[in-house]
Amino acid sequence: MRAEVLSIGNEVLSGRTLDTNFQFLARLLEEAGARVVGHQAVPDEEGAIAEALRLAFARADLVLTTGGLGPTPDDLTVEAVSAALDLATMFDAPTLAAVEARWARLMRGPMPDRNRRQALVPAGATVWPNPVGSAPGVLIAHGGKHVALFPGVPEEMRALAVQFLAPWVRAASGRTVEYALVRTVGIAESVLEERLAGLSAALGGAWVAYLPGQGGVDVRVTLPEDVAPEERARLAARARDYVCERAGDHVFATEDRTLEEVVGALLTAQSAHVAVAESCTGGLLGGRITATPGSSVYFEGGVECYSNASKVALCGVRPETLEAHGAVSEETARELAEGIRARFGVGYGVGVTGIAGPDGGTPEKPVGTVHVAATGPQGTYHRAMRLFGNRAQVRERSVTAALELLRRLLKGLPPTTPGAMFTPPAAPPAPRP
Amino acid sequence: MRAEVLSIGNEVLSGRTLDTNFQFLARLLEEAGARVVGHQAVPDEEGAIAEALRLAFARADLVLTTGGLGPTPDDLTVEAVSAALDLATMFDAPTLAAVEARWARLMRGPMPDRNRRQALVPAGATVWPNPVGSAPGVLIAHGGKHVALFPGVPEEMRALAVQFLAPWVRAASGRTVEYALVRTVGIAESVLEERLAGLSAALGGAWVAYLPGQGGVDVRVTLPEDVAPEERARLAARARDYVCERAGDHVFATEDRTLEEVVGALLTAQSAHVAVAESCTGGLLGGRITATPGSSVYFEGGVECYSNASKVALCGVRPETLEAHGAVSEETARELAEGIRARFGVGYGVGVTGIAGPDGGTPEKPVGTVHVAATGPQGTYHRAMRLFGNRAQVRERSVTAALELLRRLLKGLPPTTPGAMFTPPAAPPAPRP
Repeated sequence: MRAEVLSIGNEVLSGRTLDTNFQFLARLLEEAGARVVGHQAVPDEEGAIAEALRLAFARADLVLTTGGLGPTPDDLTVEAVSAALDLATMFDAPTLAAVEARWARLMRGPMPDRNRRQALVPAGATVWPNPVGSAPGVLIAHGGKHVALFPGVPEEMRALAVQFLAPWVRAASGRTVEYALVRTVGIAESVLEERLAGLSAALGGAWVAYLPGQGGVDVRVTLPEDVAPEERARLAARARDYVCERAGDHVFATEDRTLEEVVGALLTAQSAHVAVAESCTGGLLGGRITATPGSSVYFEGGVECYSNASKVALCGVRPETLEAHGAVSEETARELAEGIRARFGVGYGVGVTGIAGPDGGTPEKPVGTVHVAATGPQGTYHRAMRLFGNRAQVRERSVTAALELLRRLLKGLPPTTPGAMFTPPAAPPAPRP
Repeated sequence: MRAEVLSIGNEVLSGRTLDTNFQFLARLLEEAGARVVGHQAVPDEEGAIAEALRLAFARADLVLTTGGLGPTPDDLTVEAVSAALDLATMFDAPTLAAVEARWARLMRGPMPDRNRRQALVPAGATVWPNPVGSAPGVLIAHGGKHVALFPGVPEEMRALAVQFLAPWVRAASGRTVEYALVRTVGIAESVLEERLAGLSAALGGAWVAYLPGQGGVDVRVTLPEDVAPEERARLAARARDYVCERAGDHVFATEDRTLEEVVGALLTAQSAHVAVAESCTGGLLGGRITATPGSSVYFEGGVECYSNASKVALCGVRPETLEAHGAVSEETARELAEGIRARFGVGYGVGVTGIAGPDGGTPEKPVGTVHVAATGPQGTYHRAMRLFGNRAQVRERSVTAALELLRRLLKGLPPTTPGAMFTPPAAPPAPRP
């Protein structure tokens, strides 16, 4: 089954709203066994909607629309799709009753007539009642293909998609897509691609995708469609092994988990806690760690030691260290990690210090110079880096590098390996133009 | 000028990556005087790219593509577009030199041959050098229309678009769009819209856009095209006054500055420093404040007091307060703000504590319950809120609310005003189903 999504609405097209509906639907569709072949965003105009629908039907078996089902006159999706498919429209009695009951429950006073529009559906369509809002989802069969209309409000679209669409697609597609996912960190996409050059052929033409993400690259291997169902799990395992062998200890997960979740699991397995001391990242490392629900099990806390005074007073850095080596130095990073570990009385400590830019660089320590350190019962790891990018990128990559160093310490891996990114050249860095 | 955007990449189409590039480009294009008429996402396949390009050219004068310019074989955009437009490809010498220099600066060892691909461009194209990455942007003239190819990495695409695309579109569209920008926080879009219902008419048909952003809503007023050049500045000022009068103290800026920059300027004007104590946000408040270059002038540091022990030991919260009222309470928020101010010896302190979810909610304190406090020489402000959304949204909105409360304290405004969002219902909240 090939599927395409149409996002309908001027607010999407003008950039006023970020369309998150497509991503949600794409994942749900792929998981349910459909292949997403296209996505279009079009304004609230009958002509544009009809044209997009024609193009989508030319390449897809299922077309999903989101948006344009509200009560106001610029909500045109039902009319536009019905006209394009030459269908009459009608009021769906159960939906009308639900819309009226919902209004009575939530609002004061009588329901405006225009809200009845939300019960308008194409004749002959299957109506999927909206569990969290007014406009229902509808499914229309048309010439051996299908089109489904969904509200644009993300919560309503999601509720309808999970409850009705996913089971319908699973049944209609009759198959499960098998793929292997391997997540890496600290290795360049091109280096990875070179190491995995033979993978596709080794698996009889598997499709290998490289997906750069938050400081790492994911490798996703999709098996050829002609693989027998009983062979799929074995082949997926072989793909995972192939990648893990060649990407080595840059692999941090072989399933859909983040680097911070992996670090959290390693800490939890040791019943250990971590505390962080952040200078240039100013809180982003703690922010990333605590993005995971339940991180209080292993995250004790941290200090945003932006000023030198706070590095000394709260993180135990010695004033002589700052004097002799500067705030951005291996020595300060190590003392931050060790000091914060002692201050919070936990098993592991992490320190980050660097020059995020755009100002503050010097010929010896240009913008992008970052030191991270991680300490625990095993000792202290340190890594010096020259990160590229703007201020936000340097800070994000510093966070990733700090998490990666902690992962290596927790797993007993060396602090770095050949092929690793971000290692500075052996010679002192030259001043930037 | 009519413009269309093509997002190219399997990672977008599979839902693995959320496409934020389109929204950014749509806003930039509209500001520069183009009208966005469509958006398509297509996989890394020559046929699909060519088909999307044909459709886009049928309705737009400028087609922008993002993605597919990386070094790996699945990056096909240059080849696909060149083939569709019947153009040869060539290596651009300055780009090749830049790609090689970049590799030498950042990596160890020789550059793999495949990375040369990033210097491949359609013959005759204008090359826009990438200020933060490898693949350049290229602009191709074709039959009176244009197509521009941009990298998919958001930072690279944005840097290229701001530096090269926006000025080009402004010049090509032949008009400078004059607009007034007013940034608000803490007021719902619908409330704002109601208050500004007469704005468009008062300015002779100006176009009023409401742009929800990071915890606030921007009002952008674009003047009618027929306004004489000498009238534009006066009308823009009138628009600003109109919005400021009706949005009141929810307005934090009338130019393109962030809430944290405004707070930073207020602190700088007082030669004051701030320190933060963050529980549920885990570092995101410090991270947001330090996203502004030069924030060390007013940001002293903070504590990520995730555990109760760290609230007591580092932020001065009394154990009896935690015992009697819990970590998520007005009392704890106040003691966090006042304690962190004393600990860092600064003029202002901010405290944040809440339940970000998805777990940890109770009938009395459901997920989304957040308390923020800000303290300074003037006294202490506190605000209790019930925020909606998922974990990430609750945390982001907590950061915004904390910054907004500090802004109000610094400006001598009341802690909240009629029409403010997120104020909890007067009655105790009912348990959620």
